[in-house]
Amino acid sequence: MEENISGLTLLGLGTMGTALAHAWLAAGHPLTVWNRTPGRAKPLVGRGARIAASAAEAVAANRLVVTCLLDDASVGETLDGVDLAGRDLVNLTTGTPAQGRARAVWAAERGARFLDGGIMAVPPMIGVQEAGAFVLYSGSHDLFDEHRDTLAVPAHPVHVGEDAGYAALHDVALLSAMTGMFAGIAHAFALLRREKEISPREFAPMLAGWLTAMTSSAYSTADQLESGDYTRNVTSNLAMMVEGNATMLRTAEEQGVSAELLTPFMTLMERRLADGHGDEDTTGVIDLILH
Amino acid sequence: MEENISGLTLLGLGTMGTALAHAWLAAGHPLTVWNRTPGRAKPLVGRGARIAASAAEAVAANRLVVTCLLDDASVGETLDGVDLAGRDLVNLTTGTPAQGRARAVWAAERGARFLDGGIMAVPPMIGVQEAGAFVLYSGSHDLFDEHRDTLAVPAHPVHVGEDAGYAALHDVALLSAMTGMFAGIAHAFALLRREKEISPREFAPMLAGWLTAMTSSAYSTADQLESGDYTRNVTSNLAMMVEGNATMLRTAEEQGVSAELLTPFMTLMERRLADGHGDEDTTGVIDLILH
Repeated sequence: MEENISGLTLLGLGTMGTALAHAWLAAGHPLTVWNRTPGRAKPLVGRGARIAASAAEAVAANRLVVTCLLDDASVGETLDGVDLAGRDLVNLTTGTPAQGRARAVWAAERGARFLDGGIMAVPPMIGVQEAGAFVLYSGSHDLFDEHRDTLAVPAHPVHVGEDAGYAALHDVALLSAMTGMFAGIAHAFALLRREKEISPREFAPMLAGWLTAMTSSAYSTADQLESGDYTRNVTSNLAMMVEGNATMLRTAEEQGVSAELLTPFMTLMERRLADGHGDEDTTGVIDLILH
Repeated sequence: MEENISGLTLLGLGTMGTALAHAWLAAGHPLTVWNRTPGRAKPLVGRGARIAASAAEAVAANRLVVTCLLDDASVGETLDGVDLAGRDLVNLTTGTPAQGRARAVWAAERGARFLDGGIMAVPPMIGVQEAGAFVLYSGSHDLFDEHRDTLAVPAHPVHVGEDAGYAALHDVALLSAMTGMFAGIAHAFALLRREKEISPREFAPMLAGWLTAMTSSAYSTADQLESGDYTRNVTSNLAMMVEGNATMLRTAEEQGVSAELLTPFMTLMERRLADGHGDEDTTGVIDLILH
């Protein structure tokens, strides 16, 4: 594929912004940068970046303007009073879906086209092929297509909807699932912590392999949600899983581990079972946490 | 590898026991079965199984005796008064580490050699090559080696220690981590539930891929635990993660989702941060849940 080497502006040089800057510079894109604390920009000059004296000057330098700031409020503050007319603003600042949607309206009012984005990576993965990093984008698909080549430089770009809030929604959904998995991993290691004969490093591949195999649950849950039949393709039913929970709780007690990371989910499983859904797996819990 | 086709006895024909029986019969192992409810054994006769009239008769038929019963108490009840002298008892009944250790002592007192086991699979995965199923075993490594060929038939056998409690401990640790991951998956799908334009089936591969990539956390956590340095190879530090938690909580509120599945872990992250560990990632939470 022929790559379109176009210039762009980047506002924000935190750890992630700096990683993005290095990726675009390495790929030969003319880059104008600005950061509230100017010192962070200086090391990029040697790599070919142009430092703007103000956010307004940086925005004036290129049609494509990428923001990677602390939070949504920083985006408003940084661009307050800056002329955005005719600009294509791509906001990679972490936020909520509502913030993404409000920012899209705000940009349109200022004559700018807008994409919201969510970076699914830590900075060391940026610009590294095969690191598995990707960036979620939402807003106009045409605008996304126009800048796809440039956006593909730091990490694989994925468009998830015209609704400007959808990048943040997918981003947070993925991070939330990861948070649950990390809680489970913490509990697992805690169970083994006092067993001097068990090496965490030897356990890690077994744990990672097992969790990877069990991610197949995402597919069956999705299938159940979309069909509306939560008893579809159930391989381990709720009645059996609740029995298994008792063994997990007894083991936690034996090993001197608080079960606080697991009990909220177990409680919801028990509620769903008590409601007469013993032939489902855990998909019904989703209905219980929706207000 | 030349396979040793030897006979064995299986006590317990629930869904899992039945799957085990089919696997051994399909591989040509002479099999004697017994189940409290005799009806469950009948369909196996056509496949070559011998039905014993009592647990005692079943145990007398073969040196290798596998139990796959409801729970640890059922093992004691089923084998109460049965002559186990000279038998090799392999207990695939789900239990806690303490139950595994106590059952090992109990077996030794009755003149039997003993392995405890934990099946990491649902019944449809049993006997299916490449299904990724495995069975954890603990107890004498020599005894494990003696029966390895036979034990390898239903699923890949993994010996995790001489301590008879270690199969159950590894089993429960893996199930606990999976429970955390399932809680995270439930929260993720709940966030998207009311968005009619988002298809759960389209989201599933992204979610499964993301979680698979993030299982690498198991390796870095293990490395930190073993080195004792929780700041080692931190790519996203606790201070940043706690900020991310705020975005997750706001998004849950926007989408009408209770955050009860995530808050216990977030609370522990905040406690660890408040204790001055902002340069770690989440490994320190493990210390907080240990009594």
